[in-house]
Amino acid sequence: MSDDTSRTGLWFIGARGSVATTATAGLLALQAGLIEPFGCVTEQAPLSEADLPGWDQLVVGGHDVASVPLDKRAEPLAEAGVLPHRVLAAVRDGLREVDSHIRPGYSPSLGEESQRSAADRLAADLRDFRSRHRLGRVVVVNVSSTEPPAPPAPEHASLAALERALDDPASTVLPPSSVAAYAALRAGCAFVDFTPSTGIFLPALVELAHQAGLPFAGRDGKTGETLLRTVLAPMFTARALKVRAWAGTNLLGGGDGATLQDAANASSKLESKARGLAQLLGEPVCAPLHIDNVPSLGEQKTAWDHVAFDGFLGARMTLQFTWTGLDSALAAPLVLDLARLMSAALAAGRSGAQSELAFFFKDPLVPAGAEVEHRFAEQTARLHAWARGLGR
Amino acid sequence: MSDDTSRTGLWFIGARGSVATTATAGLLALQAGLIEPFGCVTEQAPLSEADLPGWDQLVVGGHDVASVPLDKRAEPLAEAGVLPHRVLAAVRDGLREVDSHIRPGYSPSLGEESQRSAADRLAADLRDFRSRHRLGRVVVVNVSSTEPPAPPAPEHASLAALERALDDPASTVLPPSSVAAYAALRAGCAFVDFTPSTGIFLPALVELAHQAGLPFAGRDGKTGETLLRTVLAPMFTARALKVRAWAGTNLLGGGDGATLQDAANASSKLESKARGLAQLLGEPVCAPLHIDNVPSLGEQKTAWDHVAFDGFLGARMTLQFTWTGLDSALAAPLVLDLARLMSAALAAGRSGAQSELAFFFKDPLVPAGAEVEHRFAEQTARLHAWARGLGR
Amino acid sequence: MSDDTSRTGLWFIGARGSVATTATAGLLALQAGLIEPFGCVTEQAPLSEADLPGWDQLVVGGHDVASVPLDKRAEPLAEAGVLPHRVLAAVRDGLREVDSHIRPGYSPSLGEESQRSAADRLAADLRDFRSRHRLGRVVVVNVSSTEPPAPPAPEHASLAALERALDDPASTVLPPSSVAAYAALRAGCAFVDFTPSTGIFLPALVELAHQAGLPFAGRDGKTGETLLRTVLAPMFTARALKVRAWAGTNLLGGGDGATLQDAANASSKLESKARGLAQLLGEPVCAPLHIDNVPSLGEQKTAWDHVAFDGFLGARMTLQFTWTGLDSALAAPLVLDLARLMSAALAAGRSGAQSELAFFFKDPLVPAGAEVEHRFAEQTARLHAWARGLGR
Amino acid sequence: MSDDTSRTGLWFIGARGSVATTATAGLLALQAGLIEPFGCVTEQAPLSEADLPGWDQLVVGGHDVASVPLDKRAEPLAEAGVLPHRVLAAVRDGLREVDSHIRPGYSPSLGEESQRSAADRLAADLRDFRSRHRLGRVVVVNVSSTEPPAPPAPEHASLAALERALDDPASTVLPPSSVAAYAALRAGCAFVDFTPSTGIFLPALVELAHQAGLPFAGRDGKTGETLLRTVLAPMFTARALKVRAWAGTNLLGGGDGATLQDAANASSKLESKARGLAQLLGEPVCAPLHIDNVPSLGEQKTAWDHVAFDGFLGARMTLQFTWTGLDSALAAPLVLDLARLMSAALAAGRSGAQSELAFFFKDPLVPAGAEVEHRFAEQTARLHAWARGLGR
Repeated sequence: MSDDTSRTGLWFIGARGSVATTATAGLLALQAGLIEPFGCVTEQAPLSEADLPGWDQLVVGGHDVASVPLDKRAEPLAEAGVLPHRVLAAVRDGLREVDSHIRPGYSPSLGEESQRSAADRLAADLRDFRSRHRLGRVVVVNVSSTEPPAPPAPEHASLAALERALDDPASTVLPPSSVAAYAALRAGCAFVDFTPSTGIFLPALVELAHQAGLPFAGRDGKTGETLLRTVLAPMFTARALKVRAWAGTNLLGGGDGATLQDAANASSKLESKARGLAQLLGEPVCAPLHIDNVPSLGEQKTAWDHVAFDGFLGARMTLQFTWTGLDSALAAPLVLDLARLMSAALAAGRSGAQSELAFFFKDPLVPAGAEVEHRFAEQTARLHAWARGLGR
Repeated sequence: MSDDTSRTGLWFIGARGSVATTATAGLLALQAGLIEPFGCVTEQAPLSEADLPGWDQLVVGGHDVASVPLDKRAEPLAEAGVLPHRVLAAVRDGLREVDSHIRPGYSPSLGEESQRSAADRLAADLRDFRSRHRLGRVVVVNVSSTEPPAPPAPEHASLAALERALDDPASTVLPPSSVAAYAALRAGCAFVDFTPSTGIFLPALVELAHQAGLPFAGRDGKTGETLLRTVLAPMFTARALKVRAWAGTNLLGGGDGATLQDAANASSKLESKARGLAQLLGEPVCAPLHIDNVPSLGEQKTAWDHVAFDGFLGARMTLQFTWTGLDSALAAPLVLDLARLMSAALAAGRSGAQSELAFFFKDPLVPAGAEVEHRFAEQTARLHAWARGLGR
Repeated sequence: MSDDTSRTGLWFIGARGSVATTATAGLLALQAGLIEPFGCVTEQAPLSEADLPGWDQLVVGGHDVASVPLDKRAEPLAEAGVLPHRVLAAVRDGLREVDSHIRPGYSPSLGEESQRSAADRLAADLRDFRSRHRLGRVVVVNVSSTEPPAPPAPEHASLAALERALDDPASTVLPPSSVAAYAALRAGCAFVDFTPSTGIFLPALVELAHQAGLPFAGRDGKTGETLLRTVLAPMFTARALKVRAWAGTNLLGGGDGATLQDAANASSKLESKARGLAQLLGEPVCAPLHIDNVPSLGEQKTAWDHVAFDGFLGARMTLQFTWTGLDSALAAPLVLDLARLMSAALAAGRSGAQSELAFFFKDPLVPAGAEVEHRFAEQTARLHAWARGLGR
Repeated sequence: MSDDTSRTGLWFIGARGSVATTATAGLLALQAGLIEPFGCVTEQAPLSEADLPGWDQLVVGGHDVASVPLDKRAEPLAEAGVLPHRVLAAVRDGLREVDSHIRPGYSPSLGEESQRSAADRLAADLRDFRSRHRLGRVVVVNVSSTEPPAPPAPEHASLAALERALDDPASTVLPPSSVAAYAALRAGCAFVDFTPSTGIFLPALVELAHQAGLPFAGRDGKTGETLLRTVLAPMFTARALKVRAWAGTNLLGGGDGATLQDAANASSKLESKARGLAQLLGEPVCAPLHIDNVPSLGEQKTAWDHVAFDGFLGARMTLQFTWTGLDSALAAPLVLDLARLMSAALAAGRSGAQSELAFFFKDPLVPAGAEVEHRFAEQTARLHAWARGLGR
């Protein structure tokens, strides 16, 4: 299906986090034929018919500020039911090897390093990874903890302004996710933001991506409640049912719960969800939404939604759903899919925002001259069309 | 939007049942501008842009074996929360007038009438209705109680065989819903089966529809659990999530609950649901399903579904939903929509099975040379395309 | 069962609110034999065997700052499904008559009236009500909107200090609910706080109740989520199951939702719920709790609780429940029950805190020298024992 | 707390089934101090204050017709999340040792053995177990698969009639669970039926228990839906709320699901549940109930209940709950508790039906001269009183 130059690097920002660890362990298990590819959309038609790198052609590396090695990091995931014990036993050596490709990440809290030096260091890591493993292409995926929204700054407005700011060693004009995105582009990599963090989504960095002819995608992986909302809301609309209120509560354990309970970090997620719902329904509705940190749930994520709607003659009706998922198990296969798809996009010379990948994201990119598409069925159709356009 | 010849008769089989009473009262309220058209899909784009009869151009009549007048029949619906008391007060006179257009229905248990005579009588009622009200077209919609599945018979295989059988006064070769469908076609009407009963779905009657150049649609209105299944199952498929089991329980009060608790009547509904789910998921799954009669729920219908699915690395996850609706309030606007759409189909000269109306049905018609389409988003797209083809 | 002196006045603070209107309409319907006494615990053994006033012996009056008459106030309750239309039609005249017994309430925002004058005026209304209707006893029940927690003040510490403060015409040392409680006690009435407002729960007013030999009860009627928690938590405890997290979300429409969405008012309710849960489980647990205002729900109140618990060998298990109730329909019969029971307590010479009525309350009174009792089964047993002690 | 003669044998009928395997592994983990005793009610006051054998004083053996050794049998339980992998690793040797105490069970399908010989063989196994391990007492607990209801037979009516029947080598008058109960009594053991099978519940065997002065308890362990019903139904009753319908659906995987999907086996369970609900509510209600076998759920058991009830003024309200538990993890600690409690009952010389242990059972024994007690709070109080009566 593909020649040797299609060997693809998958480089995680946050390579020792739950999502990256699960994705890495799962990739090793897929390579070894230990598991079925449940949750991997690139394994089924029509995406499977595109010219994508095979599982064997993916090589994992990454940045992280944490130092617990991957095989240790995988143990609580096994306890939590995300990673079967038999799989962990089989991929332990592979995890150790991938861990040897992980380099220290950038964090402003870790010392004196200027953002310019950090970006140079990160880009050098990526170039080294590419040459050492003889990779045709590298896709950088941000799966690190959600950052608070970055305050707007004039230096974000253009690449020139950003470069001038970075020349000042004392400048900390970029959030860490954007330093990583900048480095990825400078090293010639595609970039995917699987979190709601700023990442590449600054005019200066979008400009750089276009200049470098590199594709990017995002943002904020759609794995649970929002997935259901983008499936169910179009049903109400198609049936002319009047949604009066759509309330939701999310119970999260693990690191994500702790990060999101902090009001500042949660606010970007909550706002993006409310915007999406209003766009789907064609009008704003009463939509109280909560994210609660419940540490005892561990990797489990439970979302409860209650939709009150009016039908014919004003009849009051309701739909409730409860979604109980393992967050990393939902996110990991999408991350692998995105690595394959973005690798093919790189190979096909695609550049700039890949809004056709909205299927994967809570807060998808807006197509040029069009409205954002949140409806899941339409997102699916667009993704399929986009993949068909990649050639075989 | 349309001239006088577009006055359309909406003739109910089961005109004094809950669905027909709700639809009639609702139509009167729409004509009087008393309510918003929630649940009416023909009131929103793109369907609203087709050349459909206006609410004012619809005239209601029907057959029923029951004799309680419509205005009395509406009272328990008001108690049950389906029909607001203020609306009932405003449409009471209108209901009395419609009731005067209702003629005795056919039932083999009601006496000596042969099926040939019954069909002639029903067809004469339809012709009389058309001429008396100067209607351009008439759409017959079956909303009577679900019948048990009709035993197969050689007389169903061709129109000629059927006509021969009907010549025998002692023959009861057709279930009542098919007698009604036969009469509708003989009287030049479009036919819609909103129930899972046999109705027009016999080769002999399909032959007659083609011969007469008349359109038909069906079957079994999709108002609750199945609607959600046709929305949610494609999500699991699109995301490559492996559904392991999809269990459902339906609690119904009212007449429908009582009819369906009878195992023979329920079996056709249960089988059709299981088939649909397997088709949506691409393979059969463990899918226990129950319909329970709970009289105290009245018009309320509660469906609980529990979906167990596997994600990446075999992670066990679940989705549960509870849908609480008022059955007649869900069905009635669809019936009005179908009357308008089938009137336009008649006007446009459409003939035979209108499989593009799958959007409305649990057990949709199979398009010629293709597989049945259960996926709701695709059904929506096809309905919109079909309506655009009707012209404006 | 009781002689003429047992005619009992039921005086509502907030007499034109949803709860009081529902209770009044329901009482009129009970007196007329129009409804069954569902939800009225004094109608079943063993409470029904105590010497309680009959429905015919209850006379309703009250204070309110609103002026919409009761029969108008009842109309939205009929629309909302709380009050059947046929009942409203039958009790309309009775509501008008009760409305003629309603006097203007006290609110600091309504003018210049000093708290001393207000209390005197309210007490005079109560005395006038008692003599005009020849009532043996009067029970005052606070069902007005929840107040924000009252700031502590030295004047609350003793009756003497409070009286001195009230002598100052500019003093506003009491929240309105406490002015009402003070007036009730001065007029020789029993007092029940069905809300979480301060009411009688200040040392000065408790002192006054003891001095006057009058009984009181409270506080905060237990009608939904908390009722279930006080039933379910003892199950986990009795079975040695380790509750790890108990999350809850409440969706409320109507006035209560609007009042409680205001953070200050909600805080007293949220704190009281968290305290109760910890007391029931014997230790604090992670218990995120939300109250959301969803106006379209009207009188409906939906509570969703998610309990994560560990069993043997650390097995992770969950219980979820969804309670969908009509708030006023849950509260109103308890208010009527409390009126009958407190009337009997007055007759039996009971004085001070009636902690045995914990059955009715979210935040029950602490028995002297004992811990507060939240467990519903124990509350039920104590109520029954208390009622048996009243004599027959 | 107790001397050496209190060493107690816990003998399982079905010793290699999920419940017995979980209980055995858990007991070994408790003895090794590896886990907290969640779910064990004898570890908390007031039961912990009775003179019960300690975990170290319990020795496990049993009968089974299956031959997979315990340590192998435990592996799927670890995969299913019932038994933590770290615990399995630590108790593997212990499981092998217990497995060496397991003897072949009796099944009529396994050969020519007469019921008299089988009973003699089983009783000899029990006597051998007691003497070999120097046990003061032995408690036999039936946790084998649910049998179909045994057809009534005159030989069950008295011990004399039964003994005569057993003298006939061709007789198969007893279901296997009753052969086991007979053998237990003949060997001087206490007997507990944790299943709905017949077991000791035949007049002839009850007579034998009284003659032998041995205590017994049962039947059908209360671990999920019924536990909740016995907690929630008394709430509706205490609050005078009128339950109109109580519908339930149980989704079970594992062996239990497969056994119960067989209509004959399920019928005893369904009937017992319906009887219990009617008794709790004081009248029969519409209570459709289903048990569905969903193999992919494995050890997980999900129960969904929907309660429709009427409140004041006939207001329609609902409670729904979903209970998701691991069946063996719920049952196992109760089995250990029962072994300790019945050992103490033996020591205290209790004889006959121990109806005070209703707390543990779906279909509890009826106290002499009284009604059966299903209410959980009352069951808890009786259990505590009974345990206090055992002495310390």
